[in-house]
Amino acid sequence: MSFTAPDPDYQRRVRDSFAAQPFMATLGARLTGLQPGSCEITLAFDPRLTQQHGFLHAGVVSTLADNAAGYAAFSLMPAQAQVLTTEFKINLLNPARGQAFFGRAQVLKAGRTLTVCDANVYARDGDTETLCARALVSLIALLPTAA
Amino acid sequence: MSFTAPDPDYQRRVRDSFAAQPFMATLGARLTGLQPGSCEITLAFDPRLTQQHGFLHAGVVSTLADNAAGYAAFSLMPAQAQVLTTEFKINLLNPARGQAFFGRAQVLKAGRTLTVCDANVYARDGDTETLCARALVSLIALLPTAA
Amino acid sequence: MSFTAPDPDYQRRVRDSFAAQPFMATLGARLTGLQPGSCEITLAFDPRLTQQHGFLHAGVVSTLADNAAGYAAFSLMPAQAQVLTTEFKINLLNPARGQAFFGRAQVLKAGRTLTVCDANVYARDGDTETLCARALVSLIALLPTAA
Amino acid sequence: MSFTAPDPDYQRRVRDSFAAQPFMATLGARLTGLQPGSCEITLAFDPRLTQQHGFLHAGVVSTLADNAAGYAAFSLMPAQAQVLTTEFKINLLNPARGQAFFGRAQVLKAGRTLTVCDANVYARDGDTETLCARALVSLIALLPTAA
Repeated sequence: MSFTAPDPDYQRRVRDSFAAQPFMATLGARLTGLQPGSCEITLAFDPRLTQQHGFLHAGVVSTLADNAAGYAAFSLMPAQAQVLTTEFKINLLNPARGQAFFGRAQVLKAGRTLTVCDANVYARDGDTETLCARALVSLIALLPTAA
Repeated sequence: MSFTAPDPDYQRRVRDSFAAQPFMATLGARLTGLQPGSCEITLAFDPRLTQQHGFLHAGVVSTLADNAAGYAAFSLMPAQAQVLTTEFKINLLNPARGQAFFGRAQVLKAGRTLTVCDANVYARDGDTETLCARALVSLIALLPTAA
Repeated sequence: MSFTAPDPDYQRRVRDSFAAQPFMATLGARLTGLQPGSCEITLAFDPRLTQQHGFLHAGVVSTLADNAAGYAAFSLMPAQAQVLTTEFKINLLNPARGQAFFGRAQVLKAGRTLTVCDANVYARDGDTETLCARALVSLIALLPTAA
Repeated sequence: MSFTAPDPDYQRRVRDSFAAQPFMATLGARLTGLQPGSCEITLAFDPRLTQQHGFLHAGVVSTLADNAAGYAAFSLMPAQAQVLTTEFKINLLNPARGQAFFGRAQVLKAGRTLTVCDANVYARDGDTETLCARALVSLIALLPTAA
């Protein structure tokens, strides 16, 4: 699917919002791809983010999926909107083992109020990329009400 | 529902596993309640864990739900089992605003292979506790195969 | 939780909508309970509705959960609203075996636009009631826009 | 992804199981595509299967997604296995309006115990096919235990 962003300044708007999330800095996550209706977030392996078997924690995997979906959706919203995740579902398919992790999301349906995204998390281990998780994410556009 | 833990040493086993998750220390999360089939994880507010509006990031909220569910399930597993989340779904109901946050999970169904938990995340803001999120979480018991 | 229906005529409005769903008649489902924010739908066992092992088909179990949630949510909406399910997630916990089945839903959060419900499906087999499925359901209120 | 079915007789096994589901006959659903790891189920519009606005009921849409996923998964299981859906999540993206509906599923991950499928439901209205729903479905292989 191909989308057009209604806000010509969507790149700056999304990147400002990403930079305003302290939790992204805490994780060391970076916004590495952004087009109308799609987004990629990249994270380097960090032992501080692991679970008991040394893999990336499912909570971090979920954060990558949710946040990539949030900004894929936000890229298509009007300039004055705010974006919130209302729900998501994630299937953890393979251990999140590797040197780098990628949350990649694309908009499936951009409604006036609700947007639904498909989000995938990949792990790069050496030369191999493995699909670790697949998610479906719903997001809502919050618009200022007229005074 | 009331459950009996098949492993009499489940308290130590769960607490050791929690302590072995570096991401819990990174978040500052603590295991504050554990009974057969239920678990509570507590987190103090920390600006490093927030999103762009100053609330606890949805990824952290999800981590609390997932991890509480994981240890509620793990408490009912046999001594030699490992536990993995296979999938979860979370609805974010209210902004995660407050001084402390609680992931509380209980087992709905403990199968031989799969366990399903109900998990809730609450925010305490002053004297008020608000339900921020409700999740359904599936976990699998990995058992060593005979040599 | 206790809710007040903003539309005093919600009973008639919900029952009219239920009666206008041909699929409910096809299944033989009946609306057997309705209060502000909660709903029960009852179905008698029918071999036409089964899967390959003779149990109620997961699609029928899901329909009971989704529809009970829809009318629990609809009971709290204003008179001119329409209701649509935007998404749901269901865990099938036990075989749907018995003589009668009950979808029971309650509203967890009633927002202006989105409502989230908890829905459970029970099977009655002789004197025993078993929880077959637990669902989380999101519904949207569609309001007519001013001309 | 490309899969090989471990059971060379998977076509007959899947088709026999489908034929043994009375609910498929009640809906008028037909198995119209089957390859290792993928499945299509087709349904003609029938006013008995609609909701209050005349569209295909969400419960029927969900049934198409769930059942297509079930048989996509079952095609990759060993001959003696049974298949059960353990959970699914579905986002309803567009009204299910048209003359024919298609549930199409493909396996994302085929584990020894759990299989996860991506499932989509399309509506054909005249010459146009619209994505009505996207689902993620988990299925379990039940194997006979040694006596």
